Amino acid sequence: MENTKALIQQLKSLDCSKMFNDDFLLTWEKNDDEIRATFAVADILRGLREKNISSRIFDSGLAISLFRDNSTRTRFSFASAANLLGLEVQDFEEGKSQVAHGETVRETANMISFMADVVGIRDDMYIGKGNAYMREFSQYVKEGNEEGVLEQRPTLVNLQCDIDHPTQSMSDMLHIINHFGGVDKLKGKKIAMTWAYSPSYGKPLSVPQGVIGLMTRFGMDVVLAHPKGYEVLPEVEAGAAKNAAAAGGKFSKTNSMAEAFVDADIVYPKSWAPFAAMEKRTNLYGEGDTDGIKALEKVLLAQNAEHTDWECTEDLMKTTKDGKALYMHCLPADITGVSCKKGEVEASVFDRYRVPLYKEASYKPYIIAAMIFLSKVKNPAAVLEDMLNKKPLRFLG
Amino acid sequence: MENTKALIQQLKSLDCSKMFNDDFLLTWEKNDDEIRATFAVADILRGLREKNISSRIFDSGLAISLFRDNSTRTRFSFASAANLLGLEVQDFEEGKSQVAHGETVRETANMISFMADVVGIRDDMYIGKGNAYMREFSQYVKEGNEEGVLEQRPTLVNLQCDIDHPTQSMSDMLHIINHFGGVDKLKGKKIAMTWAYSPSYGKPLSVPQGVIGLMTRFGMDVVLAHPKGYEVLPEVEAGAAKNAAAAGGKFSKTNSMAEAFVDADIVYPKSWAPFAAMEKRTNLYGEGDTDGIKALEKVLLAQNAEHTDWECTEDLMKTTKDGKALYMHCLPADITGVSCKKGEVEASVFDRYRVPLYKEASYKPYIIAAMIFLSKVKNPAAVLEDMLNKKPLRFLG
Amino acid sequence: MENTKALIQQLKSLDCSKMFNDDFLLTWEKNDDEIRATFAVADILRGLREKNISSRIFDSGLAISLFRDNSTRTRFSFASAANLLGLEVQDFEEGKSQVAHGETVRETANMISFMADVVGIRDDMYIGKGNAYMREFSQYVKEGNEEGVLEQRPTLVNLQCDIDHPTQSMSDMLHIINHFGGVDKLKGKKIAMTWAYSPSYGKPLSVPQGVIGLMTRFGMDVVLAHPKGYEVLPEVEAGAAKNAAAAGGKFSKTNSMAEAFVDADIVYPKSWAPFAAMEKRTNLYGEGDTDGIKALEKVLLAQNAEHTDWECTEDLMKTTKDGKALYMHCLPADITGVSCKKGEVEASVFDRYRVPLYKEASYKPYIIAAMIFLSKVKNPAAVLEDMLNKKPLRFLG
Repeated sequence: MENTKALIQQLKSLDCSKMFNDDFLLTWEKNDDEIRATFAVADILRGLREKNISSRIFDSGLAISLFRDNSTRTRFSFASAANLLGLEVQDFEEGKSQVAHGETVRETANMISFMADVVGIRDDMYIGKGNAYMREFSQYVKEGNEEGVLEQRPTLVNLQCDIDHPTQSMSDMLHIINHFGGVDKLKGKKIAMTWAYSPSYGKPLSVPQGVIGLMTRFGMDVVLAHPKGYEVLPEVEAGAAKNAAAAGGKFSKTNSMAEAFVDADIVYPKSWAPFAAMEKRTNLYGEGDTDGIKALEKVLLAQNAEHTDWECTEDLMKTTKDGKALYMHCLPADITGVSCKKGEVEASVFDRYRVPLYKEASYKPYIIAAMIFLSKVKNPAAVLEDMLNKKPLRFLG
Repeated sequence: MENTKALIQQLKSLDCSKMFNDDFLLTWEKNDDEIRATFAVADILRGLREKNISSRIFDSGLAISLFRDNSTRTRFSFASAANLLGLEVQDFEEGKSQVAHGETVRETANMISFMADVVGIRDDMYIGKGNAYMREFSQYVKEGNEEGVLEQRPTLVNLQCDIDHPTQSMSDMLHIINHFGGVDKLKGKKIAMTWAYSPSYGKPLSVPQGVIGLMTRFGMDVVLAHPKGYEVLPEVEAGAAKNAAAAGGKFSKTNSMAEAFVDADIVYPKSWAPFAAMEKRTNLYGEGDTDGIKALEKVLLAQNAEHTDWECTEDLMKTTKDGKALYMHCLPADITGVSCKKGEVEASVFDRYRVPLYKEASYKPYIIAAMIFLSKVKNPAAVLEDMLNKKPLRFLG
Repeated sequence: MENTKALIQQLKSLDCSKMFNDDFLLTWEKNDDEIRATFAVADILRGLREKNISSRIFDSGLAISLFRDNSTRTRFSFASAANLLGLEVQDFEEGKSQVAHGETVRETANMISFMADVVGIRDDMYIGKGNAYMREFSQYVKEGNEEGVLEQRPTLVNLQCDIDHPTQSMSDMLHIINHFGGVDKLKGKKIAMTWAYSPSYGKPLSVPQGVIGLMTRFGMDVVLAHPKGYEVLPEVEAGAAKNAAAAGGKFSKTNSMAEAFVDADIVYPKSWAPFAAMEKRTNLYGEGDTDGIKALEKVLLAQNAEHTDWECTEDLMKTTKDGKALYMHCLPADITGVSCKKGEVEASVFDRYRVPLYKEASYKPYIIAAMIFLSKVKNPAAVLEDMLNKKPLRFLG
């Protein structure tokens, strides 16, 4: 209770007024107050739920989800967040719709949004497309609201795009903050965001990009490691460097996993596809070149296979700070001998960190709920304080 | 606020008692008071929501949706309406069910309805089948309620059948009423419901039929235009003529789009399939004659192609009343140069009317909610008045 | 009202404390008080709903459904039960998830359960697998809760497995109790759970197993009848015999449908697959032996075809107690001349019992709601009494 009260006090000191009636698309579009407010609200909502206090702010309303890729945890996290606040999830499945019938994005966006308070979109497959689609969608519903078509502006939450995966990186970060006991404890901590081998290919870049784009803002020593040829988006790297400079931290790159691990406080070994290859794939899809796509797949798998030594092993873990770095992953991981012959991480390492990994994931529903809350509620601290005082029950058991 | 109050007063003067505990299947089964009550309640619910007043009347309960055809806006409109009133949507997907296992319609209807307050059905593909299916379903759940199987009678909303599309035509009509400033302003206004060319085929007849069946009831001059061979159901035409006579308006037919457009206050150019061809297709499906269906498709596309000049162009629009007729469409439209090479409407016409078109669509959730409301609430005016006085919040932000 | 009050008094006298925060997986894991409490709560919830009293205990929260087989009534019953108590259903569809991506059951179970209060699973296709999967899932979320990953323990409801179908058998039993006017009226009543011919194959064993495992606990004379070769799980039979002895009833077996029907008060003729064949099929699936599966299917259909005389006919019905035994079925039934040429039951028998059959099915939503209620609410009688006193409206119409 005391902790929740303190967080509400902290929230009062932060200026998050520009989040009201706005989207959450990229963490680097949010200033430090806004990022901290999101963490605070997420922890407050969690605290309220633990105390069986309902944080329902909607008596009715829809939360539209639009997934263009399979998903387990993000889908359920979005549904959980919407439900916590009182919104009913409606999946927009393009296959069941008349999109193919000749609807434009503008038309679809308005047609599904008449009673939508929030829209969550996952569109991470094509470089240059996903985030652009979200912005287009957002612009159309904003206009729809201004033109009197929509009674409210449905705000957007980026549930993963080609550039960023803010609900993931924010959950990861909140995990780190709570694990180490506060933002102020992170100064100088070394985190290694490193590529790892996977026998599958085409994994999105949004996780490493999201991580370096966000975690460079807290005075940490952020190292990005990958084999040559697995570069991420140059503008995201540039942003990371700028962030680090501003926050009094460091951002560096290496082509050695071993180097990145040395003395690291946190390691995040995870496979991704080279940005250039993903761009090529996007073009091949655009051209409908199936043979080209298959050929590219072969090339990428062969390229991956040259780096099977990029695995998070017990030996590597021993080289981290006191041999006890916090191991992180967005899940599901490719675990050697479990989900594949050879993968991103040794089974014994993964097993040892299973509980922290699950806790890392457990922040996502609250992070999403916080993003929605801050985009909808004009005086978030006041509304949360009111809940804490009135204590409406989530469950009367 | 004043407007909502006035509408509630108006509602008190209308006799809609027979709508209680009944279905909404065809607009022409409802008398004028009932139609007006539906419009009033739709506008009241919209007004309440705009004032952030919750119109939730259910604390729990299900709204079952049964779509036998793809749908975007009707699906989301039904979900929005149900949610607004406090019902949770459950999609009944025949593919995931045991219907193929030998269940009868009677059995299925009862088995999914134990806690269903409302059932929305879309079944528009086969002439002679869709509306009949709804009536069968309705009869079975009515009996189920009488026999003590179901604790309530789930009322039905026709979300489009082979005969009528009442949630569409009612939304269209409410759009017209509000656009022109009231029902009394419509006397003598000319509306052209006309066929238009589309490169696809087999579009349902329910929209033109719904429009001529409903809009002839308001003293307007309703013109139905289509090429020879694109006749709609004869009984619907007969009903339209009868309506016009009773309401002091006109119903006429022509085979010239140009003639229909002359001095029109409203134009509704939209493709549909010939009734006779749809009947033939229904039989071919019944016989499982795939070759026959393919052959018919070719014939129909060729037939359409003879009428590419049935397009809503800028030139045609100039011939309407002051060159400024209200352009309407149920969406999505086939827009020349946008969604197809040559279609129902010129892009510049469509673009000019984009905002009114979206507003036209925005009435559907409220029309559906009004239909549900009037079928469930015994004293609708009293309940709405109570909401307006007590002002329960939809959103406490 | 009086009846509901009396049931609440009865509930107070039953010790169902161990149901709190526990799963409902097999009826024979629950003691008599717990079974009776479930019936009582189901009838109380039904009584409250009939009186338009809301029994919503959750302001927010998810009910996860995981169906590995098609389902109509169980799917809708689960959705209805969840909705009645205030939970929103989220279907976990493995096809849309990343399960194939290498997630373990432990990981999936935790990842979808962050805000799940209850999880309903149907997994009835493979002998030795379904119930085991539920236990594994349950263990993982229990641990997740203990490890601080999940803020609550999501309790499980078995929506049909390879061993038992408790939501079905409990609904069947409550139907019998209410039909005959109370548990005390059942002493000595004869019920014939008998195999019947079906032209399809591979129907689950969980229904007959669930019925003999549960109904032997009420002092009835339970007869299990099937042709040789259609044996059910030996351990379930053993349990039934033990139950009957403890309850002062009888459990016997016969290979004659006619013998089972003689003087029966209740008959439950229903097809199922031989246990041994299902076990074989499970192994063939495990080995991916498609040819073997097809060959087995042929053998099983041929085996079934030797017993087309196992049909519930009017003539057989005449041999039951006063010719008026209560006919039961879990639905959908294979009805001769209706859903198949030759099936489990003559059409005239089925038709005569249609209303009681539908009522039998109507208990399922309340049985499931009772199972959830008792697993979540510490003092069920107190909470229900409070509802009955305060009378929150389910529907304010």
